[in-house]
Amino acid sequence: MVDFIGIERVRELVGALSPQRFIAELAGEIAADFRRWEQFDKSARHAVHSPVGVIELMPTSDGRLYSFKYVNGHPKNTSEGLLTVTAFGVLSDVNSGYPLLLSELTLTTALRTAATSALAARHMARADSRVMALIGNGAQSEFQSIAFHHMLGIRELRLYDTDPGATAKLVDNLAQLRLAGLKVVACRSTAHAVEGADIITTVTADKRNATILTPDMVAAGAHINAVGGDCPGKTELHADILAGRDTRVVVEFEPQSRIEGEIQQMPADFAVTELTQVLTGRAPGRATAHEVTIFDSVGFALEDFSSLRYLQRIHQAERGLRRTVDLVPDLEDPKNLFGLLTRDSRSGDKTATRPPARVSA
Amino acid sequence: MVDFIGIERVRELVGALSPQRFIAELAGEIAADFRRWEQFDKSARHAVHSPVGVIELMPTSDGRLYSFKYVNGHPKNTSEGLLTVTAFGVLSDVNSGYPLLLSELTLTTALRTAATSALAARHMARADSRVMALIGNGAQSEFQSIAFHHMLGIRELRLYDTDPGATAKLVDNLAQLRLAGLKVVACRSTAHAVEGADIITTVTADKRNATILTPDMVAAGAHINAVGGDCPGKTELHADILAGRDTRVVVEFEPQSRIEGEIQQMPADFAVTELTQVLTGRAPGRATAHEVTIFDSVGFALEDFSSLRYLQRIHQAERGLRRTVDLVPDLEDPKNLFGLLTRDSRSGDKTATRPPARVSA
Repeated sequence: MVDFIGIERVRELVGALSPQRFIAELAGEIAADFRRWEQFDKSARHAVHSPVGVIELMPTSDGRLYSFKYVNGHPKNTSEGLLTVTAFGVLSDVNSGYPLLLSELTLTTALRTAATSALAARHMARADSRVMALIGNGAQSEFQSIAFHHMLGIRELRLYDTDPGATAKLVDNLAQLRLAGLKVVACRSTAHAVEGADIITTVTADKRNATILTPDMVAAGAHINAVGGDCPGKTELHADILAGRDTRVVVEFEPQSRIEGEIQQMPADFAVTELTQVLTGRAPGRATAHEVTIFDSVGFALEDFSSLRYLQRIHQAERGLRRTVDLVPDLEDPKNLFGLLTRDSRSGDKTATRPPARVSA
Repeated sequence: MVDFIGIERVRELVGALSPQRFIAELAGEIAADFRRWEQFDKSARHAVHSPVGVIELMPTSDGRLYSFKYVNGHPKNTSEGLLTVTAFGVLSDVNSGYPLLLSELTLTTALRTAATSALAARHMARADSRVMALIGNGAQSEFQSIAFHHMLGIRELRLYDTDPGATAKLVDNLAQLRLAGLKVVACRSTAHAVEGADIITTVTADKRNATILTPDMVAAGAHINAVGGDCPGKTELHADILAGRDTRVVVEFEPQSRIEGEIQQMPADFAVTELTQVLTGRAPGRATAHEVTIFDSVGFALEDFSSLRYLQRIHQAERGLRRTVDLVPDLEDPKNLFGLLTRDSRSGDKTATRPPARVSA
C-alpha cells in the first residue's frame, strides 16, 4: 500500500499547521537540500509541448529517495474554469524502487514556490525591504504574499493584474487572513505598483515573451523575484534589466534555466550564480545596497523532492485523514505475480495452497 | 476527481474478461497505435540508475492523450520478498493537461508485454509454430504462456529456469489454467528446453550481460522473443546470434533499443527493422521459412499508452469497484487556488460568499 495525500488531506495538513508555518518549515527543508546539491541526480525536465500548453515530468534523486513531479501549464485553462497549473508527484525508495507516497502537488507547488522565493529573497533582498510589488494576482499570489510577509517582514503589498477580478480576489483573501501590520494597495498599472517597492515579484501566466517589467521601473537596490517566466518562449523581464551593469542573477539549476528562465534571452555565457552557491556561502546573494538582484526562478525538481519528503513526515505525524492506495501488489511469492489473478481474496490469503500439478518430464 | 485503477480493480477487470481476452484485445490496441507511429511524440525513457536497480519514466503522447509510466527494475528484490518490477501510470488530456486516470501497471505491464510479444510473433514466427521454449519462469512467464497459447496456437511449452522453484510455480499455475491441448515440459537446461522449439522466449531478470542463448541452440527458422534484456548492460543473447547471416532483427523504437536492447552489443549501423514497419506491411516480419527472426523487445512507452487507454475504456464499461482519487483540485474560480485552504467543505460550497474586503487605493 502506498500513502496517499489528496486535496482534502493537504488542506487538512496546511490547516493544522497554518500556511505560514508550512511555508517556513518547507523553506528550511528546501534550503537543507540545496546545501547538499552535489548529492542529487539532476536533469532538465522532460516536456511535451502542444499548441495550448505543456506537460512536464521532473525527476530527481539523492541516492536514497527518488521523486518526480507531473505538472502541466495551460494558460488558456482559466477561461474554461480550469487551473493553469496542476501537479502531483511520487516519492520512492531507491533501494527497492517501490513508491512510498503519492501526493497532490497543485497546492503544494504554490506553497513550495513561495517558500523558495522567500528563501532566495532572504539572501538577496536588502534586509530593510518592507514594500513588495506583486504583479500577477492569480493562483499563486496569496502564497507569495504570505511567504514574504512572514519570512521577509514585508508590510506593504502593491498589487497589479491585467484582470481586476484577480486583484479583487487577492485583496479579499488577504483581508480574511488579517496578516499583522500588512497594508494592501490595489494599483492601476505595473508602473504604479512598483513605486517605492523594495522587492518586485512577477508571477504572470501568459505563454509568450511578455515584457512585464522594463528597466525604468526597477530602482537601484531592488530585488526582483521573477516567478512567471518558466518555459521556452515565456518570459516577463525586458532583457535590458538582466543586462544592467550593477545586476546579479541567481538561478536554481543553470542548464535548465538557460532553456526556461528569463536568461533564455541572454547569450549562453551570460554570468549567473546558482542558488546552492548562495545558500552555502560560496557566493553572495547581494554585494551592495544599490545592486539590482534577480532571482530567475523556474522551479526545480529538488524543491518538489523536499516537498514530498516534508509532506510524508507531517502526514505520518498529524492526525486525521490517512489514506492509502493499492498502487503496487503485495505478494507472498514475488515470482508469482500471476497468482494475484487467481487468488481468492486480498487479505491474509496471499497464496492459496493448491495440490501440486502434474509435470511431464 | 481522477479515475483510479488499483490492484483490486485490475484483478476484477482481468477476471471479468479472462486474461486471454484482455491480452488479445490489448494486442489489437497496441497494433493500431503502432500503425499510426508518426503521430506519437517519442523519446527514450528517463532512467535513474543505482547500484541495485533502476527507476524509469516513460512518457509519450499522440497530441490528444498523454501518458507516462513509472517503472522500476531491481533484480535483487525477489530475495527480499519484493517484486523485481513494479509500475504505475497516468493518462492525461493534452488539451487541459489534467490527469484522467491513475492506474497500477505492474500486472498490466506483464499483460502488455505478453500482448506485444505475441503480436510481433504473429508477424515473425513461422505460421506452423507449435512448440515454444520459455527460458526464465519468473513473474512474467504465465502471461507469455497464455499469450502464445491463445494468439499463436502454441501447444507445447518447454520450461527452464535456474531456480527450480520458479519452474514449479509456473507449472502449477499453468495446470490450474487448463489451457486447451497444452503440453508443459519442465526441462533440465536451456539446451534441453530449446530442443525442437519453433519459438524461444527469453524472459530472465539478471542485470548483467548474460548469455542465455548461444548460436548452437538456435535452429534455422526459429523465432526468438527476447524480452529480458532491456537496459544498458543487461542482455540475454550471444552477439553471434544477432550477427548470424540469415537473421532478421525487429525492434520497437530504434533509438531506445540501441541503448537498451540486445543490439547494444552490435555496431551503431547494425541493420534493424522497426515494428511499425512490419505492422504496416512496409517490411516483412519474416522473408523465408529458414530465416532466424528476433524480436529484440525492451518495452516502449507506446505500449503503456495503449494499455492505459484500454484500461480506461474497460474501467468505464465494466461494473464493480469504481474508485476516484482527489489528485487535482476542483475550483469554482480557477484563479482562487488559495480559496481551497479557507473554504469550509469540499462538497457544493466551493466558494463561500464573504463580504468584500476594504481596499486602500
